[in-house]
Amino acid sequence: MELALAEAEAARDRGEVPIGAAVVSASGAVLARAGNRTLELRDPTAHAELLAIRGACAELGSERLVDCDLYVTLEPCAMCAAAISFARIRRLYFGAADEKGGAVEHGPRFFQQATCHHAPDVYGGIGEAKAASLLKGFFAARR
Amino acid sequence: MELALAEAEAARDRGEVPIGAAVVSASGAVLARAGNRTLELRDPTAHAELLAIRGACAELGSERLVDCDLYVTLEPCAMCAAAISFARIRRLYFGAADEKGGAVEHGPRFFQQATCHHAPDVYGGIGEAKAASLLKGFFAARR
Repeated sequence: MELALAEAEAARDRGEVPIGAAVVSASGAVLARAGNRTLELRDPTAHAELLAIRGACAELGSERLVDCDLYVTLEPCAMCAAAISFARIRRLYFGAADEKGGAVEHGPRFFQQATCHHAPDVYGGIGEAKAASLLKGFFAARR
Repeated sequence: MELALAEAEAARDRGEVPIGAAVVSASGAVLARAGNRTLELRDPTAHAELLAIRGACAELGSERLVDCDLYVTLEPCAMCAAAISFARIRRLYFGAADEKGGAVEHGPRFFQQATCHHAPDVYGGIGEAKAASLLKGFFAARR
């Protein structure tokens, strides 16, 4: 989660919403790390999780990340939750909950849907204080 | 929808699940078209809709596709439905319904969630017979 938080800080420094993610293999190797780049890439799908999943898939040469874990500083949205499922991520660790856009504990609760065919083990609230503080600071500065 | 169906056929011919999509601007210009490429790109996020949205954003140099419409041969999954929302797609036209993985009329029904902050107008069943026939033929041939 330290790497994901560092990616969130780097995203903030680029003017992006400060969210970061990392994909780690079963042996503990960091396969990919990424921060949010939706503005820089002009790509609404360039969330930290999607970029990290795509990076890890490229690293492994596989469209599945079996036995890999994903760390992300904010509760994933529906797009990222579904991508986590498709990639067969084993464990999802996330920081702050997201009442407005989250899809794990809020809204669609995607992993609990019958249309979700693989659900990771989910651990929320990891590094929550720092993740939430980064987001609050970012939005407070923009008001 | 004819372009999306042609992309679905091209995906089938590449050995991919036959799903195709196209993004059209308010003036009727085709900004991007794509078929499913998850196997070829070894990328679980390379659904037709996501590739078409990313292509259209690159074409316009914007992370939002305001006043643009998306045509896709199958009911979008949760990942693609959320991406459609983030991109601010105006109208979504889809072909066959997807009971197993759809997220518009099935499962999460993403556009009806309070955590969905932009919902397109949705028109299902457009070109449904051909879209469904492509999928049935593809899976029958693999059994």
